[in-house]
Amino acid sequence: MLLAGRPPVLGLYRLSTTDMIAALKLTLLLLALAFSQGQQHNYIDELDEEAGTVRAVQASQYVSLWPLPQKVKISDISFKLTSFNIVDAKESSAGPSCSLLQDAYRRYYEYMFGSAKRQGPRKSRRTGPSELTKLQVWITSPDSECDGYPSVTSDESYELSVDLPYAVLKAPKVWGALHGLETFSQLVYEDEYGAKSINSTAISDFPRFAHRGILLDSSRHFLPLKVILANLETMAMNKFNVFHWHIVDDQSFPYLSRTFPQLSQQGAYHPYTHVYTPADVKMVIEFGRLRGIRVIPEFDTPGHTQSWGKGQKDLLTPCYSGSKPSGSFGPVNPILNTTYDFMSQFFKEISTVFPDAYVHLGGDEVDFTCWKSNPDIQKFMDQQGYGDDYKKLESFYIQKLLDIVTTTHKGYIIWQEVFDNGVKLKPDTVVHVWIGGGANEEMNKVTAAGYTTILSAPWYLDYISYAQDWQKYYKLKPDTLIHVWKGNQEQYQSEMANVTSAGYQTLLSTPWYLNRISYGQDWRGHYKADPQDFNGTEEQKKLVIGGEACLWGEYVDATNLTPRLWPRASAVAERLWSAKEVTDISDAFNRLSVHRCRMVARGIPAEPLFSSYCPREYKGI
Amino acid sequence: MLLAGRPPVLGLYRLSTTDMIAALKLTLLLLALAFSQGQQHNYIDELDEEAGTVRAVQASQYVSLWPLPQKVKISDISFKLTSFNIVDAKESSAGPSCSLLQDAYRRYYEYMFGSAKRQGPRKSRRTGPSELTKLQVWITSPDSECDGYPSVTSDESYELSVDLPYAVLKAPKVWGALHGLETFSQLVYEDEYGAKSINSTAISDFPRFAHRGILLDSSRHFLPLKVILANLETMAMNKFNVFHWHIVDDQSFPYLSRTFPQLSQQGAYHPYTHVYTPADVKMVIEFGRLRGIRVIPEFDTPGHTQSWGKGQKDLLTPCYSGSKPSGSFGPVNPILNTTYDFMSQFFKEISTVFPDAYVHLGGDEVDFTCWKSNPDIQKFMDQQGYGDDYKKLESFYIQKLLDIVTTTHKGYIIWQEVFDNGVKLKPDTVVHVWIGGGANEEMNKVTAAGYTTILSAPWYLDYISYAQDWQKYYKLKPDTLIHVWKGNQEQYQSEMANVTSAGYQTLLSTPWYLNRISYGQDWRGHYKADPQDFNGTEEQKKLVIGGEACLWGEYVDATNLTPRLWPRASAVAERLWSAKEVTDISDAFNRLSVHRCRMVARGIPAEPLFSSYCPREYKGI
Repeated sequence: MLLAGRPPVLGLYRLSTTDMIAALKLTLLLLALAFSQGQQHNYIDELDEEAGTVRAVQASQYVSLWPLPQKVKISDISFKLTSFNIVDAKESSAGPSCSLLQDAYRRYYEYMFGSAKRQGPRKSRRTGPSELTKLQVWITSPDSECDGYPSVTSDESYELSVDLPYAVLKAPKVWGALHGLETFSQLVYEDEYGAKSINSTAISDFPRFAHRGILLDSSRHFLPLKVILANLETMAMNKFNVFHWHIVDDQSFPYLSRTFPQLSQQGAYHPYTHVYTPADVKMVIEFGRLRGIRVIPEFDTPGHTQSWGKGQKDLLTPCYSGSKPSGSFGPVNPILNTTYDFMSQFFKEISTVFPDAYVHLGGDEVDFTCWKSNPDIQKFMDQQGYGDDYKKLESFYIQKLLDIVTTTHKGYIIWQEVFDNGVKLKPDTVVHVWIGGGANEEMNKVTAAGYTTILSAPWYLDYISYAQDWQKYYKLKPDTLIHVWKGNQEQYQSEMANVTSAGYQTLLSTPWYLNRISYGQDWRGHYKADPQDFNGTEEQKKLVIGGEACLWGEYVDATNLTPRLWPRASAVAERLWSAKEVTDISDAFNRLSVHRCRMVARGIPAEPLFSSYCPREYKGI
Repeated sequence: MLLAGRPPVLGLYRLSTTDMIAALKLTLLLLALAFSQGQQHNYIDELDEEAGTVRAVQASQYVSLWPLPQKVKISDISFKLTSFNIVDAKESSAGPSCSLLQDAYRRYYEYMFGSAKRQGPRKSRRTGPSELTKLQVWITSPDSECDGYPSVTSDESYELSVDLPYAVLKAPKVWGALHGLETFSQLVYEDEYGAKSINSTAISDFPRFAHRGILLDSSRHFLPLKVILANLETMAMNKFNVFHWHIVDDQSFPYLSRTFPQLSQQGAYHPYTHVYTPADVKMVIEFGRLRGIRVIPEFDTPGHTQSWGKGQKDLLTPCYSGSKPSGSFGPVNPILNTTYDFMSQFFKEISTVFPDAYVHLGGDEVDFTCWKSNPDIQKFMDQQGYGDDYKKLESFYIQKLLDIVTTTHKGYIIWQEVFDNGVKLKPDTVVHVWIGGGANEEMNKVTAAGYTTILSAPWYLDYISYAQDWQKYYKLKPDTLIHVWKGNQEQYQSEMANVTSAGYQTLLSTPWYLNRISYGQDWRGHYKADPQDFNGTEEQKKLVIGGEACLWGEYVDATNLTPRLWPRASAVAERLWSAKEVTDISDAFNRLSVHRCRMVARGIPAEPLFSSYCPREYKGI
């Protein structure tokens, strides 16, 4: 019953029938033990909206592993964790001097055993035959990369064997060891007496995609350092490895630049309380590094730069009203040499502050209205022979910017418009696909042109329900297909009319998931999306290096960011880490329910998936 | 400019042009002072989605008062609060023995001055001419009601005069004084040296509606006591006065009954960690009382009772599959004497545990499938001559339940189906209108039938499916209060019209179903809805005693409840408190932005309205 309808068991070790029965017993046992105290209750007893019936969450074969490892075998032999310690293996290339690992041991020890003191080895009695006392961590490559930074080519694989006389976690680099420690901690459960236990387990694991990111936006609302760090911590629990820091935008410029301090002095919401100092930025980078997370800052130009203009004279284009400046400003002024002098100095600083090999240069949503109004720009357009094609002007700017950044020895990520506009890109450029209408086709084109790409279109987590104002926000290619999925009947019909009268193809979904998107389990939609589900060759699909869940900041700040991000981003985490075949939504629901309670137990206010409870509810308000 | 487009100044005192200019200066001053430290920045610098332009939030004439008092005049004369104390007026009928007021003084002192020690009177120098040292609180009625409970007829009015030699807050009862203290605290601001100041002000205030409620659901997710108390505290900041505690439902039974402890023992998510003990319930009630908030529990029957069945044998109807019991259960079994014995004992306990004069008896969404399958029920239907009309059976049950509750000397609130089905109701019954289809008509009918009503319907835009056959059954007591909760705007307005044209009191909730979220500023929709906007006579409209914002619990728990509720519920708070004419959405945006930052400063994670910042951001994660 429990295993009925599941896909074939994944992985290295196929389970025998006996194994499966044992696994069944185990998972029932775990549910009984881990989620009740003294008396058994249904873990989650819920009213299924669709069926209209009450059903209990079923135990997943893999208990609570999230994201699901590539290859896993859990047996029914259980060990008690006695006088337990995490230690370096003798053969490991990373010893006690590798503080990244030592910190991680401490962190996971606390997650597993609480903040109680480590028990010293009990000398007074020998450990029993079913007692596990050690996890040995063995970095197998001569260069552990302990003191380095993670990168898109980092080896994140690991192998975990939980067996007597001690558990062994082998990984070529520290990055895999970090993931393995998280996995190990997810295997630990409490027996009926509250003793921590773990079952004999063999896992071999590696990520499906190299780029597994979360975008946070600290411009629309300033995010206190504590909030960023807490979410980096939660990213590690979900094996995300890229923090895409959308640090500045129109609304505010919280990045305190050493070279141009007036940018935040004038452009931040507040020059002292709402800025990221160099020490703050360093802290974010190091906190991320210790968890295998890359920090990629985005400095989006030439649009989205209103806040830059406050502290940098002549950087933005003066807009005109008739023959006179209107007093307002548009995108970065692309026709002045001073602009490029500024950018050279600015990105030189950025290249030293942020160690990652990539910087995100934005390039999205450039509004041409202001450029069109400005006579100097018009003159420049004439001189260049651009006619009325302001995309050429935009490309002119971006091209120069890319050349500048190239001199800083950084690679760049750009939003898809830059590619769409035909800017000449370095071969290692990463194109970030975000526009909902036609994302599949875009992925096809980008990869056919030989560029690596990351996908965000299906994962805009700030959209609890989607803002359908495509006319305002999106610059669309003529052959864009617009997927309408919002509103009541009158609204979506009107939207269909607008879209088609503007000459676009359209596709309707609204009547079929009206409630679910704005109200309900939208994580299912995030879970189902796959970055490789587009028409293209196998070669093209290899160019998809991953994806990002985006939480734009208009409606989130320190008060609500964390519960809005988790566990919805966890759905994306599994899609980007686990094997392509891992798509069983009800198994995912079961594991994710447990995973969400684990995040709560670790102090993260991850919101519920549906009616349910956690053994340890969130302690804050 | 600032005041352009505003409606005529409300209230007692009309402002002269000089006053208006002064007020303008004042508000600009306040914005400059209260929201910057050392350097002036735009308080909120935002990209207006609609206009596509950057604009700054403008200063409201009323600065940060929320909800807006009925009559208010703020002058430009400012006083420093020096050695400030809140004290009882000599003439007050409530003295130092009134711990409700003494607690409130302490609470508001801390909100205004932080938790720093009260400054003793400074003997070394005299207070200056522009220094205010005291707020005198004067309860004018001989019975202050200090030790009583608030009720639907409580006098909540107050008058506040801020002037030399001291500020005076006059209120007939303590309930008005509590509201006045909140208002006083909203007037205080910091001058450029961090000194607390207040301007000469005259306010006369009272609520537009007597019933201003928030529904929280502790069954779909257990809400830790701390979460409930924090939200009661926030309700007081918004002048809400009813906590509608949807305490049990299908999913869990967290109420620990002294008489039937097995109900929570078996029916709670967990029998020890996920229950409300008698002491917890007492705490909620007293915490509410000290803030002028009534606690009205809802024990919804005969549907929504799956969790009751776990601990009370034979309470629910056994469903049949063909000729045999299927093992599952339906609504409360209405044909057994044991059912009514149980209900008598249970509601006797409830009537002593909860002091409020009303209990909410639910009565919504009864599914007849199970009753139809059960041969004993069929036999009973035949005996009673009900034919196939299961609504008659439902009414049979509800009628007996209402009689039982009447013997406990409690009034009752019922969801509108009970009224629709023609159950005989006591004259003081409150009918809660929630069904979207025809809510307007329902309100008309309920009020025309003479019942008081509360509305929830306009805030439940997704569910429009419920059929209302109220015409067939029409035997409610004339003073029944009908709670409107369902439908789109047209539908709930029609319902309100029906309910009130039938002479019933009514209560609105539809537009205020806060569990339904959409992307963007959905508070605007909540703000615009008005419970009296239905076709009906003035007499009918008087039967609308208020409304409730509903936060159902399927997708909220301790991790995300508070930011999802606030400040969206604040929009409802102003609609239910302030004058009908207070509808300027941009003035509301300005005040609500400040009010939300005030809630944040007081430790409540109220989420942002839009891109913006608070001087003191939320400290948690």
